[in-house]
Amino acid sequence: MNNQTTPRGKFISFEGGEGVGKSTQVTLLRDHLTAEGYEVVVTREPGGTTGAEEIRQLLLSGDTDKWLPMTEVLLFYAARVDHIERVIKPALEAGKWVISDRYADSSFAYQGAGHGLTQDTLKELHHIATRDFWPDLTLVLDADVDHGLSRATEREAAVAANNREDRFENMTNDFHQRLRQAFLDIAAANPVRCRVISATGSISDVAQRIWQAVQNFRQGAAG
Amino acid sequence: MNNQTTPRGKFISFEGGEGVGKSTQVTLLRDHLTAEGYEVVVTREPGGTTGAEEIRQLLLSGDTDKWLPMTEVLLFYAARVDHIERVIKPALEAGKWVISDRYADSSFAYQGAGHGLTQDTLKELHHIATRDFWPDLTLVLDADVDHGLSRATEREAAVAANNREDRFENMTNDFHQRLRQAFLDIAAANPVRCRVISATGSISDVAQRIWQAVQNFRQGAAG
Repeated sequence: MNNQTTPRGKFISFEGGEGVGKSTQVTLLRDHLTAEGYEVVVTREPGGTTGAEEIRQLLLSGDTDKWLPMTEVLLFYAARVDHIERVIKPALEAGKWVISDRYADSSFAYQGAGHGLTQDTLKELHHIATRDFWPDLTLVLDADVDHGLSRATEREAAVAANNREDRFENMTNDFHQRLRQAFLDIAAANPVRCRVISATGSISDVAQRIWQAVQNFRQGAAG
Repeated sequence: MNNQTTPRGKFISFEGGEGVGKSTQVTLLRDHLTAEGYEVVVTREPGGTTGAEEIRQLLLSGDTDKWLPMTEVLLFYAARVDHIERVIKPALEAGKWVISDRYADSSFAYQGAGHGLTQDTLKELHHIATRDFWPDLTLVLDADVDHGLSRATEREAAVAANNREDRFENMTNDFHQRLRQAFLDIAAANPVRCRVISATGSISDVAQRIWQAVQNFRQGAAG
């Protein structure tokens, strides 16, 4: 890699089920990278741009059966394309690191394993919409489903009633079990890009595991 | 075809540029078919279901460059899948005829010829999202671009300022010329499904041309 000019930044995604502590860990990783001198952009899916946040509102509110799985995944990809082209790629090209709270693996887990769309359908859609754009590093936060859902429920209780984004958290326990397994399967199938991080223990324990994974990734990327 | 039980209804789409008089002709065709004893469902794209109408609001309001072409076509297909599965297919299976003001050819014309997405990309997306679901008959209303846009502008002037759906009408004249040609090309490439109908002359002249095309279609379908 040519380090004489500004090198392209790195794209890191956080994945995992509900309530595994992704947003807390995103913030801690940003602070850690910033302290080491990186310019870091933190973003999230669905969302990250004005248009994508409008799509987010359609996706995350309403009844659990509001959208058919195919409709849902098309909406997620509509938001994702806006996010990639208007936020992620420009930041990477400017040499910044991008940390996204969720990315395409969530579509493969939620609409695929969770709601029955085939992996082939999702791969074709990902190819058409993004030309196979994937993160450099994906951190899959893994925790027991009951642990995660109880955390998610506590968080929702604190959210104002007029801004509820709980559609996915209201799915059944069986759904969340399939989801957890789907993320583990994705990580196993993509060993170069993905690292599974145990999300149990204290926040600082989890942060330390994540930092170790990022250091390993940087050494690999620099080597 | 077995006519002993309720036969599947027919799916007719109206296509064409802005202001060619589609919605007026949709209503007249519905009345004509109803008078002949058919049960007819009239619908439109983007829209036709609660969810799809929400997506319609995202698509048709805002600046002309609000959405990237790929984002836009994914939103259209999200709305279309909802429309197909929740309105069009159930109606057809119940023996009703469905008339839709716009369908997938509009995506091929607007996001394809209009905004540069390739035909291959659109065909792949149509296949993934709809499993190649197409109308039985598509009526392409064709008129001079200036004629159509002046009609569209008159109509917009009558629409309340808080419900403007004029994003596509605000595109350039060159865009609308490409669009007209795209619809003519689509009709030429799909001669079994599509009929080009001249949209110039009086409303009843156009309605008569449409009725002739529908009669020819029925004779072909029954033969």
